[in-house]
Amino acid sequence: MACRHESDTTAPFPGKREHPMHILITGGCGFLGVRLARTLLAGGPLALAGAPARAIARITLADRVPPPADLQADARVQFVPGDLCEQVDNGALPLARADALFHLAAAVSGECEADFDLGMRSNLNATRMLLQACRHAGHAPVFVFSSSVAVFGGSPEQPLPAVIEDSTLPTPQSSYGIQKFIGEQLVADFSRKGFVQGRSVRLMTVSVRPGRPNGAASGFLSGMLREPLAGERARCPVAPETPVALASPGNTVAGIIRAASASAAEWRVRTAVNLPALTTTVREMAQALEHVAGRATSALIDWEPDAQIAKIVTSWPSRIHAARAQSLGLSADPSFDAILRSYLRENPQAHQWPRQ
Amino acid sequence: MACRHESDTTAPFPGKREHPMHILITGGCGFLGVRLARTLLAGGPLALAGAPARAIARITLADRVPPPADLQADARVQFVPGDLCEQVDNGALPLARADALFHLAAAVSGECEADFDLGMRSNLNATRMLLQACRHAGHAPVFVFSSSVAVFGGSPEQPLPAVIEDSTLPTPQSSYGIQKFIGEQLVADFSRKGFVQGRSVRLMTVSVRPGRPNGAASGFLSGMLREPLAGERARCPVAPETPVALASPGNTVAGIIRAASASAAEWRVRTAVNLPALTTTVREMAQALEHVAGRATSALIDWEPDAQIAKIVTSWPSRIHAARAQSLGLSADPSFDAILRSYLRENPQAHQWPRQ
Repeated sequence: MACRHESDTTAPFPGKREHPMHILITGGCGFLGVRLARTLLAGGPLALAGAPARAIARITLADRVPPPADLQADARVQFVPGDLCEQVDNGALPLARADALFHLAAAVSGECEADFDLGMRSNLNATRMLLQACRHAGHAPVFVFSSSVAVFGGSPEQPLPAVIEDSTLPTPQSSYGIQKFIGEQLVADFSRKGFVQGRSVRLMTVSVRPGRPNGAASGFLSGMLREPLAGERARCPVAPETPVALASPGNTVAGIIRAASASAAEWRVRTAVNLPALTTTVREMAQALEHVAGRATSALIDWEPDAQIAKIVTSWPSRIHAARAQSLGLSADPSFDAILRSYLRENPQAHQWPRQ
Repeated sequence: MACRHESDTTAPFPGKREHPMHILITGGCGFLGVRLARTLLAGGPLALAGAPARAIARITLADRVPPPADLQADARVQFVPGDLCEQVDNGALPLARADALFHLAAAVSGECEADFDLGMRSNLNATRMLLQACRHAGHAPVFVFSSSVAVFGGSPEQPLPAVIEDSTLPTPQSSYGIQKFIGEQLVADFSRKGFVQGRSVRLMTVSVRPGRPNGAASGFLSGMLREPLAGERARCPVAPETPVALASPGNTVAGIIRAASASAAEWRVRTAVNLPALTTTVREMAQALEHVAGRATSALIDWEPDAQIAKIVTSWPSRIHAARAQSLGLSADPSFDAILRSYLRENPQAHQWPRQ
């Protein structure tokens, strides 16, 4: 894979030579990583943490699987294959040259419930090792940490408030949620010490994800749209009235990039920012599918409750008052119909139903 | 050091043979560990997590320094010397036989601010390793984790609420506070998974501590009483009107033991319990010293502000509404005069001023 160094010829401060901007994305070949990389490469110069905007000279994607062909063909993209903990351990990541890290790599919620040690390693150890490596690199890079709405969980003894605020105490009901919340604490303290410029963002459940199921308990919230659009049956394991808080892939990536660009004054405090979410129900999602693709398509949803998945999903919050995100100029998707239409526009090959 | 196994001849369930109760205390030779051990040994049978009370057959103290003579002489006490992480690593701790662990070992706040790696190792790694070892022991022991009021910290951008509730979001302003808050999360998830029966209690600032200063930023809150009582000058590095939340050693140990005895139904949720605290000011503490020991003694306090210590201390909360602790039957010390009189009663050798 080629790599070209670009010198920034439009340095805003005469006499101060700006080095080429270098971005590192862990989990960079996953769904969000790829979308983030494409968005950054297609965008203009990037402002990091309130600094003047500079062109992106290189994006390094760290992952266990290779990037798609379009990113492989981009001379600005470098791929570092392997396990993240091992990569940090053996110095394979170009941390000393990274202006910003987007730490997206994680084991997902279902995996972490099934394999406790996997989650502790992939989510907790890896985040800590990456932060320590940034600290030792010594230049306090921007560190965007993808936390999750799964830090919030309700139980009969400790129900969630009706609306989640940025100041709501997380009481995670899953190992994944605990590990993400611990990651937030580490990012906060490494930031306070000046080791990184931390930006923890809590991603909402993303829908509609293209591709295949990924083992997350939330997977059906994409699958119940994606599979019927491709002419296949799909299961909805929760009751139709189940409320959910969702964000489109595009809106999610916009939030991640905004976190990286926010100045310290805009970011204000070291606690995590809840990204905005659209509150809807799975019934409304099925209705949107019917609006957009017809009744024959929405009839491909099998409403078969699964108590274990329902227990996890209903422990997640469904109403988010994302005040800090709003102060950064971010907002929720306007409707699930709009989310679904974006998915179809962005994935024209992904549906087989007759166009209307 | 001798060790005697006692069989419990009063097993409450006929036919079920109760093994002798074994308690492990990490940091067991520190000030609180020693006091906890003495209180447990002097008390009668102990109820753990709501189970029927049983006699304590053995207490193992894990620490780097040996216990005092009275504990060394007790046949029920075993001492395991060494570094906690190494002890867990090499299997030196009798975890498989421990009915309850009181995890008190920690690097204190001032040390953790000065030496980041020390805090990460002594507070985060050690807690995690101990929890993993309990998990692998397989019998879900009671695990009392001594967290701290230092999880709460205010900043100009994110001031603390006027009163701290059990549901207040901690925003730690120190590495120590972050590490303790992470410990709480680990205890919560290991409990949820059934690996331990976790009981996280947030200890308030303890005053009056006997002995020598220990490097904590809060040290002066004991030293400004203890040293003048011993005829020595002592520094108060914060302004007289500084409000503080305090608990006596006796009240603190009572809270720790109550956490171990609480049933799952009494404990209710997996988040940490704020122990009760008396709200006072350092001026009132000096006045109490004058009441109890005369003006010549309180005049030994040097009021010399230290901006760095004042910044840490004033970031701590001073008003705690300890609702969950109250529901467990715990309450704050009635006054600082009462705290000071307890100290003098318990430490008759520690003061040189003329009795009044």
